[in-house]
Amino acid sequence: MLLEAVFHRPKMNWAFAIDSHTVQIRLQTKKGDMTQVSLLHGDKYDWENSNGVKPMECLISDALFDYWETTVTLPLRRLRYAFKLESEGETLWFTEKGFFEETPPDSWGLFEYPFLHAGEIFSAPEWVKDAVFYQIFPERFANGNVLNDPTEVEEWGGKPERTNFFGGDLQGVMDHLDHLQELGITAVYFTPVFEATTNHKYDTTDYMKIDPHFGSNELMKDLVAAFHERGIKVVLDAVFNHSGNGFKPFVDVLEKGQDSPYANWFHVREWPLAVKEGLPTYDTFAFEPIMPKLNTENTEVKQYLLEVARYWVEDIGVDGWRLDVADEVDHAFWREFRAVVKKANPEAYILGEIWHDSLPWLQGDQFDAVMNYPFTDAVIHFVTKGKLDAAGYAAEVGHQIAAHSKAITDAAFNLLDSHDTERLLYRCKDNKDMMKAAVALLFTHPGVPCIFYGDEVGLTGGEDPGCRQCMEWDKSKQDLDLFRFYQAIIRFRKEHPALRTGKLRFLLREPGSPIIAYERELDGEHIVVAVNASKKEASLSLPIGEGRWVDWLTGEEAGVSAKEKPAASGKKKAVALTLPAYGFSILVKKDKAEKAL
Amino acid sequence: MLLEAVFHRPKMNWAFAIDSHTVQIRLQTKKGDMTQVSLLHGDKYDWENSNGVKPMECLISDALFDYWETTVTLPLRRLRYAFKLESEGETLWFTEKGFFEETPPDSWGLFEYPFLHAGEIFSAPEWVKDAVFYQIFPERFANGNVLNDPTEVEEWGGKPERTNFFGGDLQGVMDHLDHLQELGITAVYFTPVFEATTNHKYDTTDYMKIDPHFGSNELMKDLVAAFHERGIKVVLDAVFNHSGNGFKPFVDVLEKGQDSPYANWFHVREWPLAVKEGLPTYDTFAFEPIMPKLNTENTEVKQYLLEVARYWVEDIGVDGWRLDVADEVDHAFWREFRAVVKKANPEAYILGEIWHDSLPWLQGDQFDAVMNYPFTDAVIHFVTKGKLDAAGYAAEVGHQIAAHSKAITDAAFNLLDSHDTERLLYRCKDNKDMMKAAVALLFTHPGVPCIFYGDEVGLTGGEDPGCRQCMEWDKSKQDLDLFRFYQAIIRFRKEHPALRTGKLRFLLREPGSPIIAYERELDGEHIVVAVNASKKEASLSLPIGEGRWVDWLTGEEAGVSAKEKPAASGKKKAVALTLPAYGFSILVKKDKAEKAL
Repeated sequence: MLLEAVFHRPKMNWAFAIDSHTVQIRLQTKKGDMTQVSLLHGDKYDWENSNGVKPMECLISDALFDYWETTVTLPLRRLRYAFKLESEGETLWFTEKGFFEETPPDSWGLFEYPFLHAGEIFSAPEWVKDAVFYQIFPERFANGNVLNDPTEVEEWGGKPERTNFFGGDLQGVMDHLDHLQELGITAVYFTPVFEATTNHKYDTTDYMKIDPHFGSNELMKDLVAAFHERGIKVVLDAVFNHSGNGFKPFVDVLEKGQDSPYANWFHVREWPLAVKEGLPTYDTFAFEPIMPKLNTENTEVKQYLLEVARYWVEDIGVDGWRLDVADEVDHAFWREFRAVVKKANPEAYILGEIWHDSLPWLQGDQFDAVMNYPFTDAVIHFVTKGKLDAAGYAAEVGHQIAAHSKAITDAAFNLLDSHDTERLLYRCKDNKDMMKAAVALLFTHPGVPCIFYGDEVGLTGGEDPGCRQCMEWDKSKQDLDLFRFYQAIIRFRKEHPALRTGKLRFLLREPGSPIIAYERELDGEHIVVAVNASKKEASLSLPIGEGRWVDWLTGEEAGVSAKEKPAASGKKKAVALTLPAYGFSILVKKDKAEKAL
Repeated sequence: MLLEAVFHRPKMNWAFAIDSHTVQIRLQTKKGDMTQVSLLHGDKYDWENSNGVKPMECLISDALFDYWETTVTLPLRRLRYAFKLESEGETLWFTEKGFFEETPPDSWGLFEYPFLHAGEIFSAPEWVKDAVFYQIFPERFANGNVLNDPTEVEEWGGKPERTNFFGGDLQGVMDHLDHLQELGITAVYFTPVFEATTNHKYDTTDYMKIDPHFGSNELMKDLVAAFHERGIKVVLDAVFNHSGNGFKPFVDVLEKGQDSPYANWFHVREWPLAVKEGLPTYDTFAFEPIMPKLNTENTEVKQYLLEVARYWVEDIGVDGWRLDVADEVDHAFWREFRAVVKKANPEAYILGEIWHDSLPWLQGDQFDAVMNYPFTDAVIHFVTKGKLDAAGYAAEVGHQIAAHSKAITDAAFNLLDSHDTERLLYRCKDNKDMMKAAVALLFTHPGVPCIFYGDEVGLTGGEDPGCRQCMEWDKSKQDLDLFRFYQAIIRFRKEHPALRTGKLRFLLREPGSPIIAYERELDGEHIVVAVNASKKEASLSLPIGEGRWVDWLTGEEAGVSAKEKPAASGKKKAVALTLPAYGFSILVKKDKAEKAL
């Protein structure tokens, strides 16, 4: 038994409430080390009469560890607990005080979840886990009103540059609601729409006003209502880490220096404001002088930004906020932000932009989700870059699932590209099969998928500005095969709850192999996904269960091999599959499948 | 290299701010596994020009792990980082994405501390780390006013029972300030003083009023002023987890049931309020019907309790709060509580009662410290119970130090007994040498020592009610030898900053041995402590450094052995010591010592 591999510490992803009387407990052990792990649990104030032992299940594994999990119901919302570890010929008890050979005689020194408070249950809005998102970069989506174009507007479809304009606006979005509804998405996320000087609008001039080149507050209100009529939610981008240099308080500080009443709204390291050898004398986003960092620990700044947060949700009706550079703003601010937003609309979605380990922001008191770039990386590295083999992909996904509660995983915002990355098709070197394989992974993964505008009609392009080109509205130039593929996989996901919140279990994840296969399961619904992330055709034997399985793409029944090869589990039958280069197969177990297909 | 033993996750005790531009980083590795660990660090927005590598030091070890530590200064308050691990013949880089053989080419996938916010620095009041606390249980400390005695008061010094009264009060404390000042303590912590029905007052009837048997609000204000005149801080006990059943809102709910405007102030599981087969139909502390749990998620309850918190600090002048059953109250409440208390007095101390792993409450936004019962356990198990050997004691202490930042460790509230435990002398089976050995460990350990009233004059007794007996004021019955010992060790601690905030390094910690020895060091001040936790005399060889060392107890110079035995480090000289049964020795390095002794 490798004691050094055993890890548990209450709270975070190790012990957390999942409903008013249930706590989920997890334990890390060395991969393959334990034959069984069990949870000893009870009420510390009545240990003798309340204690019990229940087995834990292996939730998932990564490269080094198994993660064990179980839930425990707390009639009085109090819990003390320890772990019983069993490996070949050895049994140990693991408590807060270390490892012991004897069963703990009482509850002294055990781990503790002292009291389950309703307010500490992580809970994203109910609609989120079923959503399919679509990201719109308004300046490049559609120009619906030429009268509000910037003066130097270029012809629609021209080459995107960092500083040019094409006239996209909110009316353009309003004009293309049919496209979005036909595609099947259920929520849109707009990059910034407030008054700003750039085409991306991440340098806010006025947080209370739609950029005049995009439209007006009234038009946004109408647009939100129009989306709502079609059952589509709307999320806006809150750039609260920094403002633009045209933001009135910053202009005032530029003019008056330390005498400005707004002097403490920013982080000035040295007066006067200047840029010395490329380095502003005040904190900014990155090193960008036109994006001064806001002092969100200042009470007045907080009041201002919280009113912004309230206004767009309560008065305009938007369904949530995506938070730009969210990890560089203090936790205390986000806690107040959450209180204000959820008061305005308890079903509003709060989505932070964090590229790295984000658990400290996902404790129930700040965000509902983050932009899941770690998942992006796993897919891109497995499918398009060949940096990960199947074992590596499964280990990375296993690590991510183990590092978060199921509620966090189910509400995560999964994306394969955005305005901050190369486009997916570009990453796939314009190989559409590769792209579809990646999209198949996205839509069969736990969490909320998001499509970057235009991916569905074949837009391609490298990093900013390449990825921010104009949407293609000429049907003859759209890739309609791709559009139909997106339509179909969106519909498929909507029809199968197992794809949204089902348990994920890997079936094939061999080192050195480009073939990944996994099952999603929920309430008796079984779906198996197999992806060939290589340019060679591959034959494989999939250890799936009894019953008839239908291929989602072909509608044909998958042939269970006559040999009935016993698989690793010793229980499953195998199905023989041939996957073309970057091909994938999604099999649906019959009884459920008949209804759905 | 044992990869399974390597652990790091940003925030908590692994990456935290220690001042406005410095972050401390820690890493866990298998004990003895690494020959060197280094930190790769830089600013993610300018990685190429800002990255660097610096060595980490082994802070301390526990039973299984070494903990490595370093600090890094962030000119722009942003940090990405990774670890370079070196063992015999192997070098690996550890990042958020796992282990790699090559140096990370850029900052992608590294660990991240995105931005250092001033408000997220853990910071206890400056005075705390230098304090020596004294805990007073007012009903049993001194009866200074017989006119306010309860009706059935018993004779001072009688046998303490769970429900009897002896008439102790605030005037009694006022009458004995000289005793406390002579002892040398610098802060007192009172168990509850607000109106309640019991002798311990943990069943509050009125949070805004001193119990009439103890005195009045005016008297408390005078007492606080009198303490302050003598340079002594005053901390009161906030019982906010539950009220008493005489608390007016609860009385109203008892009378009116669901129609009471206070119905939501408590957690009622089933109406009407009743006790069924020993179980109240409403949540309580433990199963105690007279202590209904307060609903601290309710806005009105919060407002009420926060005003209580403000009043005693701002209007009466107390210097902080000890929070009863703090772990069973929600984090959100404590965050608001901290804001209110620190606004009333930024130097107020917030001390939570938590017996188990308390790090989630010590993130800078809730408590300044907790009652350090894990340390209590370590000392008791080592010195009085023989459950831990020297290696076990050092491992437990190492684990605790590694699990918290230095600022938390230095502000921790260390105690060997309280109103909730057996008295120290009782635990030592009335062996005063054993008791002094335990006290020596307490006063030479990082963190704030607290003396339970009467320990200093030889009070003994088992768990409640035995430990809550009347203070002995008859000088002829006081143990004056013990009093002088406490005086001396308090003074010694005050004179030596190294004992308060110095680095702790173990010198002797052998498995199976009852001899522990460690050094405390700060700014060139060196103090070595050796304790013999056994009933046999022990000879030992202490690997201390060059120079002359003076024994604090005897004032004599410790004889450095002529042999100059090389110790484990290969550099240190050894001093031969003989420690009697439960004896201890404290050696002070000469140059500093001459001034102090």
